[in-house]
Amino acid sequence: MLAVRLENRSVSVRSEAPPRRPPGSALIRMLQAGICNTDLELQRGYYGFRGTPGHEFVGEVLEADDRTWIGERVVGEINLACGRCEWCAQGLGRHCPKRKVLGIVKHPGAFRELLTLPERNLHRIPKKIAIGHAVFVEPLAAACEILDQATIPRGAVVAVLGDGKLGLLVGQVLKAHGAEVHQYGRHKEKLRIAADLDIDTRMIRKKTPQAAYQWVVDATGSSAGLRQAITMTKPRGAVILKSTMHGLVRLDTAPVIVNEITLVGSRCGRFEPALKLLETGRVKVESLISEVIPLARAREAFRRAAAPGVLKVLLHA
Amino acid sequence: MLAVRLENRSVSVRSEAPPRRPPGSALIRMLQAGICNTDLELQRGYYGFRGTPGHEFVGEVLEADDRTWIGERVVGEINLACGRCEWCAQGLGRHCPKRKVLGIVKHPGAFRELLTLPERNLHRIPKKIAIGHAVFVEPLAAACEILDQATIPRGAVVAVLGDGKLGLLVGQVLKAHGAEVHQYGRHKEKLRIAADLDIDTRMIRKKTPQAAYQWVVDATGSSAGLRQAITMTKPRGAVILKSTMHGLVRLDTAPVIVNEITLVGSRCGRFEPALKLLETGRVKVESLISEVIPLARAREAFRRAAAPGVLKVLLHA
Repeated sequence: MLAVRLENRSVSVRSEAPPRRPPGSALIRMLQAGICNTDLELQRGYYGFRGTPGHEFVGEVLEADDRTWIGERVVGEINLACGRCEWCAQGLGRHCPKRKVLGIVKHPGAFRELLTLPERNLHRIPKKIAIGHAVFVEPLAAACEILDQATIPRGAVVAVLGDGKLGLLVGQVLKAHGAEVHQYGRHKEKLRIAADLDIDTRMIRKKTPQAAYQWVVDATGSSAGLRQAITMTKPRGAVILKSTMHGLVRLDTAPVIVNEITLVGSRCGRFEPALKLLETGRVKVESLISEVIPLARAREAFRRAAAPGVLKVLLHA
Repeated sequence: MLAVRLENRSVSVRSEAPPRRPPGSALIRMLQAGICNTDLELQRGYYGFRGTPGHEFVGEVLEADDRTWIGERVVGEINLACGRCEWCAQGLGRHCPKRKVLGIVKHPGAFRELLTLPERNLHRIPKKIAIGHAVFVEPLAAACEILDQATIPRGAVVAVLGDGKLGLLVGQVLKAHGAEVHQYGRHKEKLRIAADLDIDTRMIRKKTPQAAYQWVVDATGSSAGLRQAITMTKPRGAVILKSTMHGLVRLDTAPVIVNEITLVGSRCGRFEPALKLLETGRVKVESLISEVIPLARAREAFRRAAAPGVLKVLLHA
């Protein structure tokens, strides 16, 4: 079978033996998979990653212990938790200290023709959701995670900083929740996607409103963006950190303390609310897909995904 | 009257005209006042401060519009709020954007023989509290602020990093609240004060327990301390930022995001719980007083307050 491999900053596609299916896991044929910024970071050598990346996917179950899965089209939660620790007992396997993570930590990812994942990680895809759209369940769940962590009242005005893939999902999730979203970005074309979905968009000029929002989501992926998010937050307000930055970030903690601002780190989320939002059409992802490229041309797909102005690049098997 | 003046990094004591009492304000004779780390930072030139510092004090009311104040021994909240904005309406004058702050922002401080403060800022000192102890009401209120911001259950295990003046108050406040406090510090003598108050103390060696606490309070005043606090926090846990650092702090945001940690900036607090804790003897401050020095010798007092191993230095009129 074909599998993408990252090593020494380069992307290659090679032929590999199919994976062995462990008990309790399903063998899945990948249909489509999405390239995420994390994959681009793995390519740049963060986490010392080597191997097959890919954690946003849709697939068809070929083999499973529970035969009712066979033939089903599924998405899969990416954290392979131990199932026995205090975190797993709380339903927070996403924080299991022994977890492996699909395509990121110790478990080969979805950028290959066949993959395995524990059956308990799988979710059937409702018929109403197109295959290419279901690939967004994982990042959409990450956007939904905000609402599991912070009690944002309906009607609240929320600033979302960033008009990239994740920022555009976050804006929609918060709007679907009933918030009044102000989406800030630096890219006219990307902001237009939000505007077309009836979100109030604002170009980031030099200055942004100071101490203006009770809730600010930073999805810029830059330390300058995070600093800006903090200045935009009202006293006793909250900044939700929705994008990873590497290395030490230079932050001014004085306004955080003086204005008693809360910074909330936020990562993966539950799949259920994301599936519901796609099924009901309250979140739309079609306009976020820039290109669909065959797995065999993954090298080109990674290059495209890293190009300015490009949003989601999907691989298909 | 005598007044301390900070200018160009130097401390002087000079004779000044007594302050004019504005309507609604009390004229107060300072009895004792405490030198806080913020005062030492003002001396170092932060905030471009020039003038009379001092925001921890006990005084006797000499004149007031409401004559029932006259002759009373009082402490005073340090934020002079406008009384009319959305923050003031919520009882959060501490965040009023137009506020002046006693001895810090646009209102001369308490390191002088006579000072003024709005009558609504004043609190009578219960008879059971000694004058020198009541000086601690302001920093103790800042320690209590943690409980207004974070819902820490009784019985929770909380790590307090730092064995300075504020750290030792925070440890006591959390213990009085019913938490199991682990107080971490680098100074045997200071940790002994906490140990004598039945707090579980631990010397910070190179390594501290990783991902071990749901609640961590950083009262170290150093960016290295804050980084360490983050590593000690469990997934979904919280770090309360209880000490200001100047300039840009280098932080690794990756563990904050991956472990979904919340960072909570925390500053001034309400005086009521602090007065109650001192009155009932559940917080003890006698052992935190290193020296009591006359106002006229403020220069020496500032030097002593900055010396290693010294805790609170009080000025008396």
